[in-house]
Amino acid sequence: MSSTTDNRPIVLTGDRTTGQLHLGHYAGSLKTRTTLQDTHHQFLLLADAQALTDNFDNPEKVQRNVLEVALDYLAVGIDPTKTTIFVQSCVPALSELTMLYLNFVTVARLERNPTIKQEIVLRGFERDIPAGFLCYPVAQAADITAFKATLVPVGEDQIPMIEQTNEIARRINRQVGRDILPECKAMLSNVARLPGFDGKAKMSKSLGNTIVLNASDDDIKKAVNKMYTDPNHLKVSDPGQVEGNVVFTYLDAFDEFPEEIAELKAHYQRGGLGDSVLKKRLYERLVAMIAPIRERRNQFAQDPAYVMDVLREGTQKAQVVTQQTLDEVKNALGLFRF
Amino acid sequence: MSSTTDNRPIVLTGDRTTGQLHLGHYAGSLKTRTTLQDTHHQFLLLADAQALTDNFDNPEKVQRNVLEVALDYLAVGIDPTKTTIFVQSCVPALSELTMLYLNFVTVARLERNPTIKQEIVLRGFERDIPAGFLCYPVAQAADITAFKATLVPVGEDQIPMIEQTNEIARRINRQVGRDILPECKAMLSNVARLPGFDGKAKMSKSLGNTIVLNASDDDIKKAVNKMYTDPNHLKVSDPGQVEGNVVFTYLDAFDEFPEEIAELKAHYQRGGLGDSVLKKRLYERLVAMIAPIRERRNQFAQDPAYVMDVLREGTQKAQVVTQQTLDEVKNALGLFRF
Repeated sequence: MSSTTDNRPIVLTGDRTTGQLHLGHYAGSLKTRTTLQDTHHQFLLLADAQALTDNFDNPEKVQRNVLEVALDYLAVGIDPTKTTIFVQSCVPALSELTMLYLNFVTVARLERNPTIKQEIVLRGFERDIPAGFLCYPVAQAADITAFKATLVPVGEDQIPMIEQTNEIARRINRQVGRDILPECKAMLSNVARLPGFDGKAKMSKSLGNTIVLNASDDDIKKAVNKMYTDPNHLKVSDPGQVEGNVVFTYLDAFDEFPEEIAELKAHYQRGGLGDSVLKKRLYERLVAMIAPIRERRNQFAQDPAYVMDVLREGTQKAQVVTQQTLDEVKNALGLFRF
Repeated sequence: MSSTTDNRPIVLTGDRTTGQLHLGHYAGSLKTRTTLQDTHHQFLLLADAQALTDNFDNPEKVQRNVLEVALDYLAVGIDPTKTTIFVQSCVPALSELTMLYLNFVTVARLERNPTIKQEIVLRGFERDIPAGFLCYPVAQAADITAFKATLVPVGEDQIPMIEQTNEIARRINRQVGRDILPECKAMLSNVARLPGFDGKAKMSKSLGNTIVLNASDDDIKKAVNKMYTDPNHLKVSDPGQVEGNVVFTYLDAFDEFPEEIAELKAHYQRGGLGDSVLKKRLYERLVAMIAPIRERRNQFAQDPAYVMDVLREGTQKAQVVTQQTLDEVKNALGLFRF
């Protein structure tokens, strides 16, 4: 287990445990994490408590997916000797810090959070916003600051969350008169969000437009066959459109030979290149990429005791680190201590 | 330490640690607690975390008063072998339960809470309500349910808090399909709220109209002398008013011979009874009552290590009981467990 005394920057990242991860996660974050763990202190959060804020009527789903997401992590090559994988709901100091931070944020400020505003609409909460949902940016601030993370890989839409975190850190630092909580920076991915294979911007299990990380060759074939291309590209000889053509989007994300893809794009635009040629290439690439992940995933799935050990060890480490920060914050604020 | 396996009802009660307790607390709650501890399982909360929700700019005050209030408890005869005295901020399961419960309450519901509405006005928060303040009824629900308390001594104005607690308990019980969290009842005091000695309804340190539990005889004398009576009762021979006459209110609360007070009231109303006679009687009664409390308080204050031991032991017991409830709730909801 790597020590936190060296100078490597601390990264906090993670996923809500609401379902298996898929190719979108792989392209957007998982691949990066497998390299980040060599250069950074990476804490990887199985965000089951956060998942509850909009799944409180289905905690079983949230619980079941802790193990599923953990399997995804191990399958893609997250190395538990380099990355601390932990279960959010099993780290009490995160709740304690959240409760403390809630005193330093106004309700009006939480209601102004653009991400929250957007997600309230998305989830159809309207007037019935669960208090836990409104407060989850504060819980995120607790997650980030508890590990003193300075880098947080997020999408553009999550930047308001980083701002909220830094506001809380500054507020506490100002009150105690020194910088006990570092500010953090968003680590924006340069990979565009991968669309669903049906062309819809949002990839989700419920829409049935994802390719999960243990998809069978057959699943991959079916997905690629159904993949949205250019609806006006009827004959091979027709000039085709590359923009919004999901096959190209996926090739851009996963093919290892970008020059060849550039040539194929030119050819497609001129006309004379059929979808089937592209789909075959994508299918083969995805199989080559997913098959070893799937295999490793299946192996880990056969040894749940090992996976639980990984989570237990990571969670214990997270407990120690976060308790230390909680103690520091309590001491600095001058709260009661035994 | 009494066991919780017998059939004695469980009571949760406590005080925000924002200042020394005074005669108002003694009449309203402390005296009752010294008898309740013989017939009930009494958990006594030093509510420092709750005190922070409107004192986040002055945590030192909140911290300092943990010990002051604990001294008040011991001084009036709360017996730590019968009552579990504990420090709220040192019981992590309370934060964890609160975070969990926040998912089961809507923001609109919290905003409708009449007690919160009133207190928001009282504290002049207006639009800048700290999120922690809005959420504190949920934290109270966590406090109460964590101990499975069925009785909560409160004032009339706190009844909405009890209702909120029971709503959460019912919501969780409904979801898990069995009654894991008991509902609680308000235990209303039959003692009217004691006014400040200046006649103002609100007793508070900042108004300087309280008599603290370690007041010197001289403090008591000064307070009684300044005590509001009937401003129209100028001569001894004048008929005097008993209603709103603070000396009588205090005599009603503390004199041991109610029949004699009834006679004095009649005499006062007829005329011919001077304030000084009443004030002397009240002074003597208060000195007789406060002197031993003050003495015990001073003794305990000279042994802070003992007081800390009491709090440590009580807090450890509270940690065990609340962790058990947290585990039960997590298991029943089907959350992740190692």
